[in-house]
Amino acid sequence: MEKNADIGLIGLAVMGQNLVLNMNDHGYTVAVFNRTVKKVDDFLSGAATGRDTVLGAGSVEQLAAMLKRPRKIMLMVKAGPVVDSFIEMLLPFLEEGDCIIDGGNSHYADTNRRTEYLAQKGILYIGTGVSGGEEGARRGPSIMPGGNPKAWPLVKEMFQTICAKTDTGEPCCDWVGEKGAGHFVKMVHNGIEYGDMQIICEAYHLMRDLAGLGADEMSDIFDLWNRGPLDSYLIQITRDILAYKDEKGEPQLDSILDSAGQKGTGKWTGISSLELGVPVTLIGEAVFARSLSSLKDERIKASKLLVTKNSVPVKDKQKFVDDLEKALLASKIVSYAQGFMLMREAAGEYGWSLDYGAIALMWRGGCIIRSAFLQKIKNAFDKESRLQNLLLDDYFRNVILDAEDSWRNVIVQAVRSGLPVPAMASALTFFDGYRSGRLPANLLQAQRDYFGAHTYERVDRSRGEFFHTDWTGTGGDVSSTAYDV
Amino acid sequence: MEKNADIGLIGLAVMGQNLVLNMNDHGYTVAVFNRTVKKVDDFLSGAATGRDTVLGAGSVEQLAAMLKRPRKIMLMVKAGPVVDSFIEMLLPFLEEGDCIIDGGNSHYADTNRRTEYLAQKGILYIGTGVSGGEEGARRGPSIMPGGNPKAWPLVKEMFQTICAKTDTGEPCCDWVGEKGAGHFVKMVHNGIEYGDMQIICEAYHLMRDLAGLGADEMSDIFDLWNRGPLDSYLIQITRDILAYKDEKGEPQLDSILDSAGQKGTGKWTGISSLELGVPVTLIGEAVFARSLSSLKDERIKASKLLVTKNSVPVKDKQKFVDDLEKALLASKIVSYAQGFMLMREAAGEYGWSLDYGAIALMWRGGCIIRSAFLQKIKNAFDKESRLQNLLLDDYFRNVILDAEDSWRNVIVQAVRSGLPVPAMASALTFFDGYRSGRLPANLLQAQRDYFGAHTYERVDRSRGEFFHTDWTGTGGDVSSTAYDV
Repeated sequence: MEKNADIGLIGLAVMGQNLVLNMNDHGYTVAVFNRTVKKVDDFLSGAATGRDTVLGAGSVEQLAAMLKRPRKIMLMVKAGPVVDSFIEMLLPFLEEGDCIIDGGNSHYADTNRRTEYLAQKGILYIGTGVSGGEEGARRGPSIMPGGNPKAWPLVKEMFQTICAKTDTGEPCCDWVGEKGAGHFVKMVHNGIEYGDMQIICEAYHLMRDLAGLGADEMSDIFDLWNRGPLDSYLIQITRDILAYKDEKGEPQLDSILDSAGQKGTGKWTGISSLELGVPVTLIGEAVFARSLSSLKDERIKASKLLVTKNSVPVKDKQKFVDDLEKALLASKIVSYAQGFMLMREAAGEYGWSLDYGAIALMWRGGCIIRSAFLQKIKNAFDKESRLQNLLLDDYFRNVILDAEDSWRNVIVQAVRSGLPVPAMASALTFFDGYRSGRLPANLLQAQRDYFGAHTYERVDRSRGEFFHTDWTGTGGDVSSTAYDV
Repeated sequence: MEKNADIGLIGLAVMGQNLVLNMNDHGYTVAVFNRTVKKVDDFLSGAATGRDTVLGAGSVEQLAAMLKRPRKIMLMVKAGPVVDSFIEMLLPFLEEGDCIIDGGNSHYADTNRRTEYLAQKGILYIGTGVSGGEEGARRGPSIMPGGNPKAWPLVKEMFQTICAKTDTGEPCCDWVGEKGAGHFVKMVHNGIEYGDMQIICEAYHLMRDLAGLGADEMSDIFDLWNRGPLDSYLIQITRDILAYKDEKGEPQLDSILDSAGQKGTGKWTGISSLELGVPVTLIGEAVFARSLSSLKDERIKASKLLVTKNSVPVKDKQKFVDDLEKALLASKIVSYAQGFMLMREAAGEYGWSLDYGAIALMWRGGCIIRSAFLQKIKNAFDKESRLQNLLLDDYFRNVILDAEDSWRNVIVQAVRSGLPVPAMASALTFFDGYRSGRLPANLLQAQRDYFGAHTYERVDRSRGEFFHTDWTGTGGDVSSTAYDV
């Protein structure tokens, strides 16, 4: 067996296949393997037919033997134990300095662990986010690698070649940080994607059920929005989906069941937000909205028992649609602000020095959330690399203040009409909380001190000084340690 | 050393001390130990002075020697590794059939693990929720025990004696279920407590900053509310807190910093909800509201940059306050409905057969969320033990539909005025989603199928049949397995 393949790739589901074709288009010789070995033959005689620099391997041993040294082997397999099992299968056939790359949606904590484990064995590990779906993988995805920094030079050229590029030719791939940083950033990307999809769904819902617009009208509106500040892949495919007709000439969309799955990275973003104490409310609501959607039968039952007569007609449809565009934009700003808050907190927690502008640039093209909007985020961090929050950047501040009245109009109309806008409403309540110098949490602290002697800080004293009031006149001066509420 | 103590208790922080006094008041002889042994002496010569049936132990060995067989030892220590460490310290001095009870706020997964671990050693384990703060511990807490069912007969009499009682004399303590069931239910209790506290804070915020009411006026309003359907411990202490004056005669509340902590069980409730896929949105928002409150400096900065001019005056204050009462009640119904949804899902997942009426009864008295409201929940499950959702019960359905207009008025007023109501708004958007027979998740499924070939179900076909559309005309027929969004 000749050692002439530039990289080995394991896992020939759609993402894996398309990445191989993409690499091969750029002149790389790729050796491929799949646990169900028949898939290798199917691929070679199918999508990869006629490509003599895509080479099939019948085992991981064979795959390892086919690779240039140091070996680079990319796993495009299901996240979880399967990754560990392939790592163990590969180890006997690897040498010091070889590199394993996990391109699946692994949890960043697993990537932390694997990077350390393999470093002890002299193997370099990369955990990388790859986003863009099947089309992105084929034509150029966004790639977010993290792990062992010594591995980056081995794959930098290839990854920055096969990845998406911005309009100005910059690669949508850069080193994110140590250990699980790449997968963390990919996780936040996916959480943001959950949020973007949810707010688009809410806009669609209001146009469909409140303004009574048809699929073609809505497709035209999304087309228009795609030429403004909302310009993005998800807006664009929504336009196309709304225009797509089934064999009877009816909108395909109308036949699709309104019950969505939620497993994996969106959920993880919510969990990380709770664990790190960052109020990423919009993504949280987006994940929960999927859970609620899946209760289809219960919702149908409830729809018959909980009937309200609140529907308020939309008087001026054009005005409503214009308001909606601004409500979407404002909600999106909040969602990204929250996502970057989460990354900032994680960077502090895990000791990563993240380059937020570079992250925005990586998401600028290739991935599902790619958009013109991300260039504005890049610009904001170019202007002020230590920017504390996107909402404090001049550009975003002005956009959101300009959108504010429209945003409030939309929420009010939805609330009056009994249509759910969980993500857009959550974004607005966050915005109003964030810009509140004084929240009502003083009462919350008083309650905790009342029933649990949890103590509180005072507005007229230094932070870190804690006080307790004997509210009932019967409590002691023992403060709580065992009981935490 | 005589073997005459009915129970041993380890951990003399405020909750532990008060439980000992409570047990002792009911005639039980209690042996006590604390890792910092000086606390034992302090307690005996302090709060427990003159009680010759409260006995101090200088070591866990001594403590074990002082107990009647089978031994019952209750840990009131910080949740986490401290519990494991005490278990290991105790084991050498225990015999088969002895019982360890963890009364701290342990994570239910730890309790699952410890119950199994100790069962293998012949030791019976109970993980129990204990709620009611220091006062509850002293006078009668709500007690929610789960774990090894063989342990229940050993402590049933004592626990049902020292616990809180409902107005009709029923004990607020019953066996919850196997392994971590008791701690899971306690976790949900605490999550609900987060939610209750948050919606009360939002009502206070609106009265303070929108209706311009003073502390005494607000105290009177909470007093009034406490005589209606909101009658509850948290409403009552809010009334008292608002009335409490500092040494200068000013409301104590005004001096307290609006920055709240959120560690522990509220966060866990949010994480469990995400893990189990249950839309517990109100508690999620309540936890995030605490996170946001803690960003005090950033909020002050933002309050100067993100100034809006939206404040809409409250014209009829009485009407506004009446609406607010109903908004609180409706939000509370949603929050409890979500909490019971979570317990139902967990029961299915972990194989617990939970008695939801009994749980409502356990929370009826003693604990922080005790309320008249919980009797209505008990009644709902008495009427229909298999009730799928509280919102489908006739009583709650009628209450929420009656409150609906007021609820919407409050949210609209807050949204128009730029004041944050994250939990109350989230409850309303959930309500509107729950009663939507048709949500916009069909678009979400179309998007996922578009970019990731995730497939979808159809409205006109059976559940479980999956379809894929080649939306772009360029995709293949390979569906995604490695890439999950």
